[in-house]
Amino acid sequence: MSTIPTDSVGLVQPQTLHFDEPLGLVSGKTIEQYDIVYETYGTLNANADNAVLVCHALSADHHAAGYHNADDSKPGWWDICIGPGKPIDTNRFFVVSPSNLGHCSGSTGPRSIDPKTAKAYGPDFPIITVTDWVNYQARLADRLGIKQWAAVAGGSLGGMQALQWAVQFPDRLRYAVVIASASKLSAQNIAFNAVARQAIMSDPDFHEGRYYDYDTVPASGLKTARMLGHITYLSDDAMGDKFGRELKNEQLNYDYGVEFQVESYLRYQGESFVNRFDANTYLLMTKALDYFDPAEKEGGDLAVVFEKVTAKFLLASFTTDWRFSPARSREIVSALTDAKRDVSYLEFESNYGHDAFLMKNDDYIDAFKAYMDNIEVSG
Amino acid sequence: MSTIPTDSVGLVQPQTLHFDEPLGLVSGKTIEQYDIVYETYGTLNANADNAVLVCHALSADHHAAGYHNADDSKPGWWDICIGPGKPIDTNRFFVVSPSNLGHCSGSTGPRSIDPKTAKAYGPDFPIITVTDWVNYQARLADRLGIKQWAAVAGGSLGGMQALQWAVQFPDRLRYAVVIASASKLSAQNIAFNAVARQAIMSDPDFHEGRYYDYDTVPASGLKTARMLGHITYLSDDAMGDKFGRELKNEQLNYDYGVEFQVESYLRYQGESFVNRFDANTYLLMTKALDYFDPAEKEGGDLAVVFEKVTAKFLLASFTTDWRFSPARSREIVSALTDAKRDVSYLEFESNYGHDAFLMKNDDYIDAFKAYMDNIEVSG
Repeated sequence: MSTIPTDSVGLVQPQTLHFDEPLGLVSGKTIEQYDIVYETYGTLNANADNAVLVCHALSADHHAAGYHNADDSKPGWWDICIGPGKPIDTNRFFVVSPSNLGHCSGSTGPRSIDPKTAKAYGPDFPIITVTDWVNYQARLADRLGIKQWAAVAGGSLGGMQALQWAVQFPDRLRYAVVIASASKLSAQNIAFNAVARQAIMSDPDFHEGRYYDYDTVPASGLKTARMLGHITYLSDDAMGDKFGRELKNEQLNYDYGVEFQVESYLRYQGESFVNRFDANTYLLMTKALDYFDPAEKEGGDLAVVFEKVTAKFLLASFTTDWRFSPARSREIVSALTDAKRDVSYLEFESNYGHDAFLMKNDDYIDAFKAYMDNIEVSG
Repeated sequence: MSTIPTDSVGLVQPQTLHFDEPLGLVSGKTIEQYDIVYETYGTLNANADNAVLVCHALSADHHAAGYHNADDSKPGWWDICIGPGKPIDTNRFFVVSPSNLGHCSGSTGPRSIDPKTAKAYGPDFPIITVTDWVNYQARLADRLGIKQWAAVAGGSLGGMQALQWAVQFPDRLRYAVVIASASKLSAQNIAFNAVARQAIMSDPDFHEGRYYDYDTVPASGLKTARMLGHITYLSDDAMGDKFGRELKNEQLNYDYGVEFQVESYLRYQGESFVNRFDANTYLLMTKALDYFDPAEKEGGDLAVVFEKVTAKFLLASFTTDWRFSPARSREIVSALTDAKRDVSYLEFESNYGHDAFLMKNDDYIDAFKAYMDNIEVSG
């Protein structure tokens, strides 16, 4: 970038907080102590009533908006939605964006050193659920002096955290923004995750998750998993528009190399992911997705779960998203309606599939902004 | 089975023909000599005008109907459609069902011994396209004394062969039956194949396709590929109905083992496939799918391609098939209509996704039978 755009939060710096109090987990295990890395944008007001928690999805992290360096080629993952004048308007809101526990971007996760063994946790890092994330996020809020979020917002797995917040700490948020998400995975969703894990865990460089000790990474397994993930993030149409049957070279070679542009693109995506992401974290994130099912204890009746909810909800979905289709959002809307909660639902035309929640789209940005602008915060 | 059903073709035996004449391939390579294993059901009539060629898809083979042994637990892969009184009625038709060149069930393929080296072909076995299959199938027809097929029929990749027959040898078939198929893969279809190949080819036991020499097989790669394939054969709804979020054990274990029934099912499917299928053949079949695009030389205009076609067409698709959706069949129907060809199109309600063409469904069976019954054959 030569100059940082004027509607950007600008240069930002991650911060880290250390937590000493053990965190009990849904699995029954405990994390004795941990670090959380996070970014903030905007300013917390005197009443601390303008804070918005942004929750990330599978492969994103704390860097949601702005730039770390003036020459960064890309801003944070949700920069289209966070900044001055944007939907999550940093002129009004104080945004908190943490990397989740279990992640590989600075918060404590499988790649971190286990103080008990002085080696990387690896497979000994416990399974973390969405409920656990909401618990550590509540502690983070405590440390930052935020008794109640103006809103908790996220897309995909991030939307699940926003939903869970409303269920778990009804008094601690006023709005839940749940975009391109679902109240639980379908069998097909679980199946895709199972294939991704199979690819990683059968890579001989995985070493049952202890690959750090072998100074290697299960690169080919993680690459396969990411390639597969990418297919599910894009729509059939989007892939068709972007690549069609365009060839990589001028003519067909009739061999097992790359023939089509779409193959080349997927390989590139897979390879670059391996350089920035940890395989154990990928496993952990897919498991958090699998396990999420807040209605399970109520026999699947989401409306019963929502009876205790006081937050107002914004649900949004995108027409070509087949990972978490509009129908999945409508299930949540319907349960909220049955529970007589306050819910707005927006369905946007988009060709970009699940990734649409990360893409520029005037209808989406404008409607999201209009909703957020109506959230009252003190002066 | 205790007794073989009365509407079965009964006990059948594969036969093998050897072909000495070299077969020139689309890739520019040549196969010097090869075996084709095939089954036949019914009787060729005196005018040899009642023969139906059945073409198989990715993982099926020559065993399309009946039983090899009285105690077989399952009949051939299209037994619901082939037999006395069934759509491809063996009281009227003589059915020929070969295993394709490149397969691993007896016809010459990567696992066969290359006479030049006295070792398995492995990666030296050339890429085979649908066009090449139609060429060897024409030679098979010659050897069996069949100048013109009453019909060529298949589902999925088998349907592509039926379509290609009509284009490549217009005079040698009267009907083409193309079920749950497409005139070319979409970018998404190619992408799924690329991930499957990535899984196989990155398995260290793959040894660049020469795993036979190492007395091993790329089992985990092939398992991953098959698990992924299975997801695309079933609909989201079918997986939901069959498995939902049902647990494998009574409670969640919060570990990286199998938690949900759908994971267990996929693993089982993947593992049993490894025992019966060859990884190099899997690669080859996915490549044949990728390369199929009869309209490519006409700038994508399928209607131009169909101008030379004389066969009548039956197209059929299934509502929840997302691998080759009804829209893909309708593209073919539309091009045939533009070229003023004779085409019938049937779209069936089904919950079974792509696999529906292999499943019992009265509407499908009845309509398919009615169509086939109208094909005239001499007495």
